[in-house]
Amino acid sequence: MPSFKTTIRVSWADTDAAQVVHFSNFFRFFEKTEEEFYRSLGFNFDQIVSKYNIWLPRVEAYCQFKKPAKFDNLLEIELTVGEIREKAVKYLFKVRNKGTAETIAEGYLTVVSASKQTGKAIEIPEELKKQLKFFAADRNP
Amino acid sequence: MPSFKTTIRVSWADTDAAQVVHFSNFFRFFEKTEEEFYRSLGFNFDQIVSKYNIWLPRVEAYCQFKKPAKFDNLLEIELTVGEIREKAVKYLFKVRNKGTAETIAEGYLTVVSASKQTGKAIEIPEELKKQLKFFAADRNP
Amino acid sequence: MPSFKTTIRVSWADTDAAQVVHFSNFFRFFEKTEEEFYRSLGFNFDQIVSKYNIWLPRVEAYCQFKKPAKFDNLLEIELTVGEIREKAVKYLFKVRNKGTAETIAEGYLTVVSASKQTGKAIEIPEELKKQLKFFAADRNP
Amino acid sequence: MPSFKTTIRVSWADTDAAQVVHFSNFFRFFEKTEEEFYRSLGFNFDQIVSKYNIWLPRVEAYCQFKKPAKFDNLLEIELTVGEIREKAVKYLFKVRNKGTAETIAEGYLTVVSASKQTGKAIEIPEELKKQLKFFAADRNP
Repeated sequence: MPSFKTTIRVSWADTDAAQVVHFSNFFRFFEKTEEEFYRSLGFNFDQIVSKYNIWLPRVEAYCQFKKPAKFDNLLEIELTVGEIREKAVKYLFKVRNKGTAETIAEGYLTVVSASKQTGKAIEIPEELKKQLKFFAADRNP
Repeated sequence: MPSFKTTIRVSWADTDAAQVVHFSNFFRFFEKTEEEFYRSLGFNFDQIVSKYNIWLPRVEAYCQFKKPAKFDNLLEIELTVGEIREKAVKYLFKVRNKGTAETIAEGYLTVVSASKQTGKAIEIPEELKKQLKFFAADRNP
Repeated sequence: MPSFKTTIRVSWADTDAAQVVHFSNFFRFFEKTEEEFYRSLGFNFDQIVSKYNIWLPRVEAYCQFKKPAKFDNLLEIELTVGEIREKAVKYLFKVRNKGTAETIAEGYLTVVSASKQTGKAIEIPEELKKQLKFFAADRNP
Repeated sequence: MPSFKTTIRVSWADTDAAQVVHFSNFFRFFEKTEEEFYRSLGFNFDQIVSKYNIWLPRVEAYCQFKKPAKFDNLLEIELTVGEIREKAVKYLFKVRNKGTAETIAEGYLTVVSASKQTGKAIEIPEELKKQLKFFAADRNP
């Protein structure tokens, strides 16, 4: 099952007074992983905006927190393409502690293709969808 | 239906390059509302920690984003007690634009009662549960 | 000496693993205070942008941290207009713990008036400067 | 002149509605660089805390913003040891756009060695000071 993986080192600023990563930061880690996933496909958010004239706003975000992550932990974040709809795509994320291999958190982001002019949901550009499908297809032989 | 409401003014630092509130900040708004809800009940996180020797870590977070919120918008956030289990409570949140009355976002946080020593889930202190139940009971006559 | 004051309640998300407000958040508190200062003058960032066609980017930021601020502390932030130059204004900030009256932090932001088109520094709009001067004049009779 | 360098990719969450990195995030970039500097010396914040029983709170932070940094920019951050006092050390930071080589921002953090028990400033542990001095000595032959 192909997937995209990246690592994030927990910074002091990511922690809170419980001495663990503040839960809201996992959503930033998810998005950062999505950004690097696009980069691995050969483009970035900005290029998607200028090339296809769309934004990719998030319409849903979910995360289940299983184990705390602490300062200096090296986290491995795995992205898989969960579901591709006409105008939206759901990315699944799994966060592991790279040192202990424990699963820290799991969740998803549902991202919609929105016209930059009208803000309304429009079809995901064919070229982009192909790359995502190819990616998703590989995982479900 | 009783509920707890607070308002949050969107700050420049809450926005992102799409000129709307970054989605991760809604989770911070949820938590800030929960903090003020506790304060309205007569205590705060720290007092819960010192009095009952528990933390209240989040085990689940979800949000659906319906409309963008922009800089300077005054947001009204409504908290209701969704479900009280033995060791966990689910808070529901609704974010409205106070100017337009539009619903901006809806979601929840599931919070567990965890022993400060062992980190394991333990029963919600009776006194705290009573306050939450009272609150929840009121809404479901 | 006239000044503008606002209060900010320390949220859990503002803290770090040292169980105090992360130092970077004081800069967000400064800016939030500046935003409310503009609002008290009858406008906001966005209105400045649309009316005068300028941004107000920060060119300098400084803070000295004297005492830690903790979760749930109520902070009082005082803004004074330090210096008005042709194209820039320096805002001074003092953060106090409202409960103990201790000074927590002191610092400044230097903000420049920049053309939205070219990005270059341009004169502060006369009308805005007058309001700031009036404010500063009051304090130095 | 020896120095420590690291790179940081600008994430969407780092930006604000002016479509540039929010100024407060440069302070987080500074600290992240300091964290990686310690790591390059063979330890981390937590190990400093447990080994020497000290925290390293920031007592001063300054930054001058010269050029905007944008989404997806690759930033190179350079740390040099500016000044070593008995109980404090000043780290200097320079942020460059790795693509264009432009200087984006420059600033410093003054960090104090504080007893974990009393919170009071105490001498920087000899072993740590030696590493910093060695580092600083190298740069000023």
